[in-house]
Amino acid sequence: MNISSSPDKAKETRKKIMDAAVNIFADKGYHDARVDEIVDASQTSKGAVYFHFPSKQKIFFAIIEQFVEVLERNLSAAIAREEHGVQRVDVALRTCLETFQKYGNLAKIFLVQATGLGESFEIKQAEIHTRFARMIQKHLDQAVKEGDIAPIDTEVAAFIWMGAINDVVMRWVRTGDPEPERVIPTLHTMLLRSIGISEEKLKTLN
Amino acid sequence: MNISSSPDKAKETRKKIMDAAVNIFADKGYHDARVDEIVDASQTSKGAVYFHFPSKQKIFFAIIEQFVEVLERNLSAAIAREEHGVQRVDVALRTCLETFQKYGNLAKIFLVQATGLGESFEIKQAEIHTRFARMIQKHLDQAVKEGDIAPIDTEVAAFIWMGAINDVVMRWVRTGDPEPERVIPTLHTMLLRSIGISEEKLKTLN
Repeated sequence: MNISSSPDKAKETRKKIMDAAVNIFADKGYHDARVDEIVDASQTSKGAVYFHFPSKQKIFFAIIEQFVEVLERNLSAAIAREEHGVQRVDVALRTCLETFQKYGNLAKIFLVQATGLGESFEIKQAEIHTRFARMIQKHLDQAVKEGDIAPIDTEVAAFIWMGAINDVVMRWVRTGDPEPERVIPTLHTMLLRSIGISEEKLKTLN
Repeated sequence: MNISSSPDKAKETRKKIMDAAVNIFADKGYHDARVDEIVDASQTSKGAVYFHFPSKQKIFFAIIEQFVEVLERNLSAAIAREEHGVQRVDVALRTCLETFQKYGNLAKIFLVQATGLGESFEIKQAEIHTRFARMIQKHLDQAVKEGDIAPIDTEVAAFIWMGAINDVVMRWVRTGDPEPERVIPTLHTMLLRSIGISEEKLKTLN
């Protein structure tokens, strides 16, 4: 069965399937989404879908992986544009919320509509959490090394930040409230204070 | 069918069922636990179990509600013993982790073994999160009112604290790491700093 005549065509088909699946998952949730609906909505074929994704779960995890990669890429690019550690926190938070806003459907899938996937998703979720926490830890380690902040248990600190950010982002995706305009300044101030940035320095940043 | 000869007897039977269910759920997870096993382990009867709990989900939610009440009671009692706002944060954190430690099986159920329950559990979880966040917010409001801390968006701040605490507690229940001895001091320092407690004041507390 010659499903993909070229690597480009295969990539395009894969993209079509994933785009269609995002909408179906966002609409119905993982549990109630059927692969047949994804086949129809993607205007591909059952053969093509099963060629690229042997199971519904594989489609779902590919979508999540894609979103995580977009978020990581956006964060890295935003952070690289800023010279100073503390301003990096600011752009990172903004980028995070903007990415969730831009890919609303994806975010919803990732955060709140994954019920029905059970333990495999919990493991995936924990893994992604840890990945972002490690990214935060790396930047905190650098800030300690450069003398920007006093020494701290950066691993625990990164989990604390990750938990704080995750909770408000998740709450916002789920309920639409509190909105980013309220969340960002408070999160910004509290996270920076939490690593010992002084009130004087904070003022110069706002 | 005269299942409970007296209110005391009924209460006792209910307790027996819930105690047995905690072990079964902790052992097998919600999804794989069968009501028949709970009947056997509780040394009651099928009739008694269905009299008290019309479904497996009702047993599960009753257990969660019980754990949340124990945690709330322990937190209130601990907080009431301390006079000063910032010391209250400390005892609240310690009490929280101690309660999770003491009721390890319950905590595990609550945090990590609820897969299979789907959306109804996510809604319950969000509701409990919000309940604890409101508790935190109440204390932050009081601290602002008494001039202990500068004005702040206490609703967002409470979600941030709740997220930070939840993430590290959940991580510890799930993986056993980082352990409370590492988590508590860092969480304590970072949370207090985040609401603007100065380094000088922090020193007097440690």
